Amino acid sequence: MNNELALQTLDALRRVLGTNPQQLHEPSFEGNEWVYLKDCLDSGYVSSVGKYVDKFEKDLATYTGANYAVAVVNGTAALHIALKLSDVSQDDEVLIPALTFVATANAVTYCVAVPHFVDIEEKTLGIDANKLRQYLADITEQKSGQCVNKKTGRIIRALVPMHTFGHPSDLEGLISVCQEFNLNMVEDAAEAIGSYYKGQHVGTFGLFGTLSFNGNKTITTGGGGAILTNNEILAKKAKHLTTTAKISHKWEFRHDDIGFNYRMPNINAALGCAQLELLDSKLFSKRNLFSLYSDVFDQFSGIKLFQEPENCKSNYWLQTLILEEHESENLQKILESTNNSQIMTRPSWVLLNELKPFLDYPSMDLVVAKSLSSRIINIPSSSNLGNI
Amino acid sequence: MNNELALQTLDALRRVLGTNPQQLHEPSFEGNEWVYLKDCLDSGYVSSVGKYVDKFEKDLATYTGANYAVAVVNGTAALHIALKLSDVSQDDEVLIPALTFVATANAVTYCVAVPHFVDIEEKTLGIDANKLRQYLADITEQKSGQCVNKKTGRIIRALVPMHTFGHPSDLEGLISVCQEFNLNMVEDAAEAIGSYYKGQHVGTFGLFGTLSFNGNKTITTGGGGAILTNNEILAKKAKHLTTTAKISHKWEFRHDDIGFNYRMPNINAALGCAQLELLDSKLFSKRNLFSLYSDVFDQFSGIKLFQEPENCKSNYWLQTLILEEHESENLQKILESTNNSQIMTRPSWVLLNELKPFLDYPSMDLVVAKSLSSRIINIPSSSNLGNI
Repeated sequence: MNNELALQTLDALRRVLGTNPQQLHEPSFEGNEWVYLKDCLDSGYVSSVGKYVDKFEKDLATYTGANYAVAVVNGTAALHIALKLSDVSQDDEVLIPALTFVATANAVTYCVAVPHFVDIEEKTLGIDANKLRQYLADITEQKSGQCVNKKTGRIIRALVPMHTFGHPSDLEGLISVCQEFNLNMVEDAAEAIGSYYKGQHVGTFGLFGTLSFNGNKTITTGGGGAILTNNEILAKKAKHLTTTAKISHKWEFRHDDIGFNYRMPNINAALGCAQLELLDSKLFSKRNLFSLYSDVFDQFSGIKLFQEPENCKSNYWLQTLILEEHESENLQKILESTNNSQIMTRPSWVLLNELKPFLDYPSMDLVVAKSLSSRIINIPSSSNLGNI
Repeated sequence: MNNELALQTLDALRRVLGTNPQQLHEPSFEGNEWVYLKDCLDSGYVSSVGKYVDKFEKDLATYTGANYAVAVVNGTAALHIALKLSDVSQDDEVLIPALTFVATANAVTYCVAVPHFVDIEEKTLGIDANKLRQYLADITEQKSGQCVNKKTGRIIRALVPMHTFGHPSDLEGLISVCQEFNLNMVEDAAEAIGSYYKGQHVGTFGLFGTLSFNGNKTITTGGGGAILTNNEILAKKAKHLTTTAKISHKWEFRHDDIGFNYRMPNINAALGCAQLELLDSKLFSKRNLFSLYSDVFDQFSGIKLFQEPENCKSNYWLQTLILEEHESENLQKILESTNNSQIMTRPSWVLLNELKPFLDYPSMDLVVAKSLSSRIINIPSSSNLGNI
């Protein structure tokens, strides 16, 4: 019976994807990528200064509706600086979901701060606001307007919702928790360009939002990321810190802070400008792919295709199957049968609190995250698969 | 009389450079850059996996003679990981020259360690080994094979020679100091690809060496850097830590350490492969430019053109004028007259110990660095200026 579900899943995927090998997510370049790259080489501007960096930042701000965007070298760097400018410093705690890519936790540690893992909810795959509220009511107290973990004595400084596979978290619920407990909110929207919560682009609700343009994302700059914010002063600080904190001068090298070399090179930004022009058509294709998958998986029992949460528009970055709990034992079989047949699938990340470097960090009860991590399967999701 | 030296300098530069505006250092792309970039777009491999990353690493190892090279996102990241893998950890001190780009000190702080500034010598522009030996004999004691700063109580873990403007530091002298005082040596060779000390490429003498391929360097990847090492285990660790410390697995996401997203994207490596093919011809042109500058500046009194140290071959990354001490008051006038005439020149970096973020860090007497920082002028140095 176990093998049966694995075979049915493989068959369903093949009905949508055909018989060719399929990667999980591949980039595609159908626009001005080559024109803009050539322009970089012709002009000699490939590096840290150049018109494509400025253009990409403006285009990103326009697209997302954020007042400001700062292009950086990747999503991890974006999160690091966003946390730093949210006053996260040594020995602070930062609340992050247990189910996320490791970069979310790593960025916290770069601030010499402490990741504190919280549970998620099945309806958004993001942090469960109600459960978090109850937890914080139990374990924290307010001292001089700061949220203090009574158990560790440390300040809990920030909350980082991550919009899993592009699906918006419960932003209203989480904003309300942040207000109630005096937490700064930084949205890890690495996976979520083109996703909206009640009509507003994700990454624009918190003090900061961060994006990733890694090669496996909806649009790519090779490697890259961006910091979004609506606050002019914070945007200027983000630009300053990510460009070695150099004070502008025609020839003098003077730096007024410990800065970072997190600039996005012009050549990567050029790729980003071209990719951003294609984003809406990619989103259309990805939504169509969801619909194609729906047609076959709607008839399944034991597996459902994850659909965007209510009042949200998801970019459907990674299409997601979720096994019912009584089928979770079939996860490995499905992964094996699909990958062995050259249809790449993968489970969710191993929960971060189960990874060696994070074993000793604080966490709440993670029963939902634990359950979901044994039931999630991402299936091929490249935008060109949904082309009509 | 002050104005006279400034005018003479401007006139001398124009005799070599002609009347067109000149940047300090511009990249040039005369090789396979287009071909390789297009191949990335055509193949879809622009990001963290791809044949150009592997090829660039192999080509760099071959070129420098290092056993291993790990391509990363920039020179700062390279230095961060090299220091980390040299056991630099919280509250350790790291000896670095006061006269260097700020990244050298920043990378130390990323390890939550303490930069300790040391003096340089006029004949190499790098750390003065004899002065350092005397200083360490005075202020340190050996405890269980570790070098302890008697004043601060902290362990001095490593020494970072920086090969200034591409000129090799006194490596034999510095290696001897490292051996005597139990220090790990990490060479900051960000500026020095193509430079040799007694016939061996710099960056291959220490436990690690680091390179930069920023747009202003001799060859560029847009943004990029590399870690060199002769130690297989350390090379594997460097690759692991710079790629999020993920354990290799077909679908599982498990990380065994706090890693970093420091991968060089394939598209940047593609540029690097093409640029590396051109390196020898660029070095030839840069050496020729030195010769052209020599012809005019040899007749100057009060200013000398800096020449590669004895037994060394320099890449002449940035051509360097050094004012005699009695002419140091003319530095600003020369900078103004040249930059106002659109011939870009610049002084050395402001000494790091004089920057706000580093004011409270330890330093030895820095009399030579201080003097040189008021007498150095870098002049236009692009490789295409020396084409014959």
